[in-house]
Amino acid sequence: MKHPGVREMLAATVYVALLGCLQAQQLQGHVSIILLGATGDLAKKYLWQGLFQLYLDEAGKGHSFRFHGTALTSTEQGQEVIAKVLESLSCPSDTAPSRCAELKAQFQQLSEYRRLKTPEDYLALSKDIEAQVQHEGLREAGRIFYLSVPPFAYADIARNINSSCRPGPGAWLRVVLEKPFGHDHHSAQQLAAELGSFFQEEEMYRVDHYLGKQVVAQILPFRDQNRKALDGLWNRHHVERVEIIMKETVDTAGRTSFYEEYGVIRDVIQNHLTEILTLVAMELPGNVSSPEAVLQHKLQAFQALRGLQKSSAVVGQYQAYSQQVRRELQKPDSFHSLTPTFAGILVHVDNLRWEGVPFILMSGKALDERVSYARVLFKNQAYCAQSERRWEAEQSQCLPRQVIFYIGHGELGSPAVLVSRNLFRPSLPSASWWEVTDRPGLHLFGRPLSDFYAYSPVREQDAYSILISHIFHHRKDSFVTTENLLASWVFWTPLLESLAREVPRLYPGGAENGPVLDFEFSSNRLSFSQPPPEQVVPGPGSVPTPSHFQVLTAKYRHSPLISAWPEELIARLAGDIEAAAVRAVQRFGKFHLALSGGSSPVALFQQLATGHYGFPWAHTHLWLVDERCVPLWDPESNFQGLQAHLLQHVRVPHYNVHPMPVQRHQRLCAEEDQGAQAYAEEISALVTNSSFDLVLLGMGTDGHTASLFPQSPTGLDGEQLVVRTESPSRPFQRMSLSLPLINRARKVAVLVMGRMKRDIAMLVSRVGHEPKKWPISGVLPTSGQLVWYMDYEAFLG
Amino acid sequence: MKHPGVREMLAATVYVALLGCLQAQQLQGHVSIILLGATGDLAKKYLWQGLFQLYLDEAGKGHSFRFHGTALTSTEQGQEVIAKVLESLSCPSDTAPSRCAELKAQFQQLSEYRRLKTPEDYLALSKDIEAQVQHEGLREAGRIFYLSVPPFAYADIARNINSSCRPGPGAWLRVVLEKPFGHDHHSAQQLAAELGSFFQEEEMYRVDHYLGKQVVAQILPFRDQNRKALDGLWNRHHVERVEIIMKETVDTAGRTSFYEEYGVIRDVIQNHLTEILTLVAMELPGNVSSPEAVLQHKLQAFQALRGLQKSSAVVGQYQAYSQQVRRELQKPDSFHSLTPTFAGILVHVDNLRWEGVPFILMSGKALDERVSYARVLFKNQAYCAQSERRWEAEQSQCLPRQVIFYIGHGELGSPAVLVSRNLFRPSLPSASWWEVTDRPGLHLFGRPLSDFYAYSPVREQDAYSILISHIFHHRKDSFVTTENLLASWVFWTPLLESLAREVPRLYPGGAENGPVLDFEFSSNRLSFSQPPPEQVVPGPGSVPTPSHFQVLTAKYRHSPLISAWPEELIARLAGDIEAAAVRAVQRFGKFHLALSGGSSPVALFQQLATGHYGFPWAHTHLWLVDERCVPLWDPESNFQGLQAHLLQHVRVPHYNVHPMPVQRHQRLCAEEDQGAQAYAEEISALVTNSSFDLVLLGMGTDGHTASLFPQSPTGLDGEQLVVRTESPSRPFQRMSLSLPLINRARKVAVLVMGRMKRDIAMLVSRVGHEPKKWPISGVLPTSGQLVWYMDYEAFLG
Repeated sequence: MKHPGVREMLAATVYVALLGCLQAQQLQGHVSIILLGATGDLAKKYLWQGLFQLYLDEAGKGHSFRFHGTALTSTEQGQEVIAKVLESLSCPSDTAPSRCAELKAQFQQLSEYRRLKTPEDYLALSKDIEAQVQHEGLREAGRIFYLSVPPFAYADIARNINSSCRPGPGAWLRVVLEKPFGHDHHSAQQLAAELGSFFQEEEMYRVDHYLGKQVVAQILPFRDQNRKALDGLWNRHHVERVEIIMKETVDTAGRTSFYEEYGVIRDVIQNHLTEILTLVAMELPGNVSSPEAVLQHKLQAFQALRGLQKSSAVVGQYQAYSQQVRRELQKPDSFHSLTPTFAGILVHVDNLRWEGVPFILMSGKALDERVSYARVLFKNQAYCAQSERRWEAEQSQCLPRQVIFYIGHGELGSPAVLVSRNLFRPSLPSASWWEVTDRPGLHLFGRPLSDFYAYSPVREQDAYSILISHIFHHRKDSFVTTENLLASWVFWTPLLESLAREVPRLYPGGAENGPVLDFEFSSNRLSFSQPPPEQVVPGPGSVPTPSHFQVLTAKYRHSPLISAWPEELIARLAGDIEAAAVRAVQRFGKFHLALSGGSSPVALFQQLATGHYGFPWAHTHLWLVDERCVPLWDPESNFQGLQAHLLQHVRVPHYNVHPMPVQRHQRLCAEEDQGAQAYAEEISALVTNSSFDLVLLGMGTDGHTASLFPQSPTGLDGEQLVVRTESPSRPFQRMSLSLPLINRARKVAVLVMGRMKRDIAMLVSRVGHEPKKWPISGVLPTSGQLVWYMDYEAFLG
Repeated sequence: MKHPGVREMLAATVYVALLGCLQAQQLQGHVSIILLGATGDLAKKYLWQGLFQLYLDEAGKGHSFRFHGTALTSTEQGQEVIAKVLESLSCPSDTAPSRCAELKAQFQQLSEYRRLKTPEDYLALSKDIEAQVQHEGLREAGRIFYLSVPPFAYADIARNINSSCRPGPGAWLRVVLEKPFGHDHHSAQQLAAELGSFFQEEEMYRVDHYLGKQVVAQILPFRDQNRKALDGLWNRHHVERVEIIMKETVDTAGRTSFYEEYGVIRDVIQNHLTEILTLVAMELPGNVSSPEAVLQHKLQAFQALRGLQKSSAVVGQYQAYSQQVRRELQKPDSFHSLTPTFAGILVHVDNLRWEGVPFILMSGKALDERVSYARVLFKNQAYCAQSERRWEAEQSQCLPRQVIFYIGHGELGSPAVLVSRNLFRPSLPSASWWEVTDRPGLHLFGRPLSDFYAYSPVREQDAYSILISHIFHHRKDSFVTTENLLASWVFWTPLLESLAREVPRLYPGGAENGPVLDFEFSSNRLSFSQPPPEQVVPGPGSVPTPSHFQVLTAKYRHSPLISAWPEELIARLAGDIEAAAVRAVQRFGKFHLALSGGSSPVALFQQLATGHYGFPWAHTHLWLVDERCVPLWDPESNFQGLQAHLLQHVRVPHYNVHPMPVQRHQRLCAEEDQGAQAYAEEISALVTNSSFDLVLLGMGTDGHTASLFPQSPTGLDGEQLVVRTESPSRPFQRMSLSLPLINRARKVAVLVMGRMKRDIAMLVSRVGHEPKKWPISGVLPTSGQLVWYMDYEAFLG
């Protein structure tokens, strides 16, 4: 038998290797990547490079690829553009020039331009792919459609892909979408519904390119790999604040047609900064490499966000903006834009981990520096016995302790993860992150760089390259699911609506801004630190502020009337209630307060919950004036409002809180359960002479008060202390204190607020004692005092 | 008629003036000041000077004075010493030398030395004063006895003053006492009772010389004069921490016989630092110049202090201390002192104003610098949009905001009140306080001096001079009343007792201390930041810590037993309860947890209240296993413990909390009120199959569990779910879940802790099912799981 020569052996080896390669391709199959908008800016700048990178990373691993750049322009023109783009691609820095040329040539070979416009074009593309796959004896693995096109084009493209360009059975389809994904919750929902009619959720990849930024993509792995150190720290007991910041120096010149419609919140906060927020705040799944678990936990983080109010934000606009808009959009000289180019927002995450920790989101154009970061500042819970000048970065717990995800730019100039040396030495993947050497003189966040363990990526990678790789690897957690997108809009839309007519504070831009955009928060409210500067352009919103007015005292229906702007009115009422409470506790050892539900009291509850240090809560009994016949846990229940806005914040003993027993024996306000009687008994037992120290009432637009409605057969007179009544609006069944009981109180305060109450307030001022018609007119304490608290809008209209 | 000449007119004027002066003295009367211990160190250094100052300030205003220096030494010797002291007195710096000599001569004329030892001496002194007053035709206004003597001499002196040296009717007596005022609450009470048998409260002036320090004395006036700026700031919403610090560089060499008995807490913290604490924390009376109001509010501040535990403090001792003690007190070489020369203490003021704000008290000998201050650091509640290097002291809310009462020494070198420029410009009495000019390079509390509005006294005055003036002017708020003294001891004594056998951390002293004394706090606990250094002298307290041990799992009464050191055991139990809660809420949407009262669960409640972020409190129902028949607000009630340690810290909805109805219709556990039946109905209505998800039990030393005691006629079997029972100890009447109901639970956890449970744990491990004899032996869930949680002390003894 003849031994094979070296040559034969070599040939055989090559053959086997080739066969293996082909078999692998056979196994893994063929992937078509169709880049729509392939001649556009984003494609030219990032996407082609990302596709090339994908090819470099993956080509050897068993898939075969083909890249179809498409657009609406003619084949010839498109080919020309694409040829140029492909020529300009760059290889990783460690690639030899000859090898790079070779690789580029391979990639160019696999790339083509084609026009993709009509349904026929899509069909033709699909046929071509199929033909090619068949011709080369391959199996089709899947198709990626990357839609780098304006959103108005989505519907058409989606329809065409769905009807004419889906791969055959067994192969996957991935459709990549670029923001904006709607303008508010409604439009996002519509867009999602439309896309949902063409694609499975599984098939859609919504890009937020911030999720591809190396430092952002590292947040969860960092939290995971440093679990041991972070577990005890990453919570409200240790975190003082979280700042999520994106400062830009550029303005929007040249982009105003887009920007004017979107503004800073929609442009970068609703998406980029919110994504970072959820990555920082979410509960860490046991397995951070499970996309399902990550997405699920992210959704929970969204759901824990406390609803925003107008007072949760401050907005600004750089001074030149309106003029730029006028120029670029041909608006008249009288036009002043209200679009914010700066916003600071205070977010609270309402769960046990984060309760009370301020999350500060801020972004703006025309600021004094370009920098993005997410910064977790820990509380200083130490006292250092040595003189401050002896404190050392590694040892002193009194120096600031922070973890910073430095996304880019700024004085550091590159992405990095920074951890204060007095916290812990972080663990990062050593193959891809290296320690940054000190740069003397460089201070970040109040400390020299040498105070931090600082790690930067060994190789800086573009966000799009990373995301394209994640699309290919089906890493859905790097993308925005429909559910998470809508959750984000649910969170942001109310704020956007409430800010729609807010006049932004003007700022000069750049370093000249000075402290004009600095803002402060206290509990839920955010406001600029500085009084407004002289407005260069007076906005439409120059309503006089409450402090310009005095509290007005007068008479209304022969009783004292106190009138003021809402804020002052509430402050006055809260002060009066506290005074009454202190007096009652001094005299009798306790204070019986009966409260109404509704929206006006909420502001009062909040006022009482903060700042009234002298309030004798421990000796206060809280009663309900009326209740809806719903379970106490129902959001409609008056008790819920009391619980959320007052009880959670003050220390009223459990047994001093007296919800109305609307639910007994699993039934709501059933007559046979005698809830009203039970409440009356409870009152009789605890409240001397059934005379509350203070009853807080409201007044409905129909003249009702408590849950005593016009023509009510019960509660307007008679012996009963507590009655069941019927409301004209849902939920119909109610329970209420009766007028005779209310009128036994030492003091009755009626709070009336808002323009909607104007008509009834005027009417009631003239009617006599007609409780059947206007129950509120029956409020007249037998021996106590009645005081009306009306804001100017209700009283003066 | 002849006109009077100039000469006559002048003579007449002088006469009238003299007469006026005499009449004024006649009106105001004569004051005798008797300084006991007039030849001692304190007297020589401060008190004679203080008396001279009093004379200078007051002599012209209508009183006549005489100063009697007394001691036990012979007249001759004493006179010699006093003559020297009087010669060395100094006048204010603006007095001309000749005028000073004149004033000193006058004062010397009015001062005498006399021996004061026997009752006869006192009687003679009294007679002399009376004789002099009569001789000069004066009225006696009062007598001040300043006791600058060791406390053991108090009783004798007090008796003598009271029996032989009181002024006649219409004149006042003031007795001035110097610390120490006892060693703990008991001794302070004894001393106070003894003094109280001789003097009225009104007559006693206990000196804490810190109250005479200019900056300390300015705290209340500062708070008062800056009410407007401080009103919104001086509370938990804005204050991050309060530091009250007294650092010394000296050690106790030469004073160890005193120090060894007292230690740092008794020496300076119980008195000086605590007085400052109350001045900072107290509610500001409407009228700060009313001593009664100030003292009253101060007492309230004491009463709001949260009790200290051993874990509220860290203690240290400079390394040379024990040797100094051995040398000075002739102790054997084997002697090691446990007396702390350093302490850091975390104090909480439990009222709505200060809840959650850490008050850090720290003092020590042999530290790296000498400085005393009280520092109020405000929270940073701002975000500054500009790059940090552009922040300015007056404008940026992001720079630290602080108010510092700089008592003395330190780098500033003089007393001062400092207010950050970004807070407000403070108002201080301009006649006595002036603005400090900048001292370039001087940094205080992290900021250059120029960042502060800084005010120092125009004339630095010694604390004793100020206090002597306040004694004369009857300013009792500058002194320690019996009530406030005892309140302070009530606060400090438990800590002192719990620290009595604590081994202090050794520190080298001076700058070499490094960060070894730095400490950290989290919620209620304080600990050194650094692990203990090699102890030069091993202390007796080197008990192995829990982490040296594993959690042990075994069987007990055929059920799983988990055993560990207390801390780990509680952590494990809390973890198991959380896991059960999460599981139940996932499966059923709610979690029914029945809890026992007592001391062991308190640690569990605290553990659950902090750190269990995943606990589904919003879906948890809390039930009581048993209750004492006392009102729910009674401190004895199990519900109170639950409320204080758990409910106040987590968000369980009001209607998910189910206290046992032990009080109905104003009666306690009356059979006819059917409380037990009502609770049973509530359980049946809400808990599926009346099967709790988890029941937490304890075990009494008599084998009882819940409130099911041996031989109980109810609750050990039968149909009843909830029963009334009798306890062998007060309060006798109880309400309890029955054994049959407990045994329906899905899981029953029995928590047994402490050495006292050792015997019963051993006994119960051997008995069979004998619930009549050992109710705990009847706990055996029908289909659920039983787990025993016992700490090593209970299990291993």
